[in-house]
Amino acid sequence: MKVQNYRQVKNIIAGSGVTMRVVAGPAEKAPNFVMRVFEIEKGSATPLHTHPWEHEIFIVSGKGVVRGAGRESPLQEGDAVTVLPGEQHSFLNTGRDIFRLICVVPLVDGKMPGMPARD
Amino acid sequence: MKVQNYRQVKNIIAGSGVTMRVVAGPAEKAPNFVMRVFEIEKGSATPLHTHPWEHEIFIVSGKGVVRGAGRESPLQEGDAVTVLPGEQHSFLNTGRDIFRLICVVPLVDGKMPGMPARD
Repeated sequence: MKVQNYRQVKNIIAGSGVTMRVVAGPAEKAPNFVMRVFEIEKGSATPLHTHPWEHEIFIVSGKGVVRGAGRESPLQEGDAVTVLPGEQHSFLNTGRDIFRLICVVPLVDGKMPGMPARD
Repeated sequence: MKVQNYRQVKNIIAGSGVTMRVVAGPAEKAPNFVMRVFEIEKGSATPLHTHPWEHEIFIVSGKGVVRGAGRESPLQEGDAVTVLPGEQHSFLNTGRDIFRLICVVPLVDGKMPGMPARD
């Protein structure tokens, strides 16, 4: 069992104004999936992209929207988002504070899949 | 893509003073894993148990401890816990407010595994 506060985990730049911290996954020997914490600065967004695996997301704090396939949905604390394999998506901070979310992805060939290129 | 606030999801009694809401998983056609939100009342705990799959957990709010295998670790907002397959664990609310956490499990035979019996 491993316990760590996400703030103590080294952050990875995952785009302009976007950081990612891997808090549970292969380094902890978890066999199936990876939990990451994303922090998106005011006005910043993750790239609009697709991939052949799902995301399961929980909004911890802040305000934003998820965009994809011509749709836009507002997001706030307590919202859960299921992005299915192949669905286009981008998360944008539309609030004044950090937009903080948990994003879980499956392991692909035993590894965390990389950040795909923008669509 | 599906967006829903966890508070709008029907809760399931997962023990005395413990509720679970399944916010992303088979109902959304996610193929690999299930995200649940647990709320543990003051003084309540999940049963001490083990199972052959991992948990990846994120503490959203409140204070508590995780117990198992003779160890006890304090938990607070922002902590992530990896429970590996076969590791004994119980989550207890030691604070004054609701102890709220995200807990992700893999699908087992295409379904969310049931709450196992207490060890």
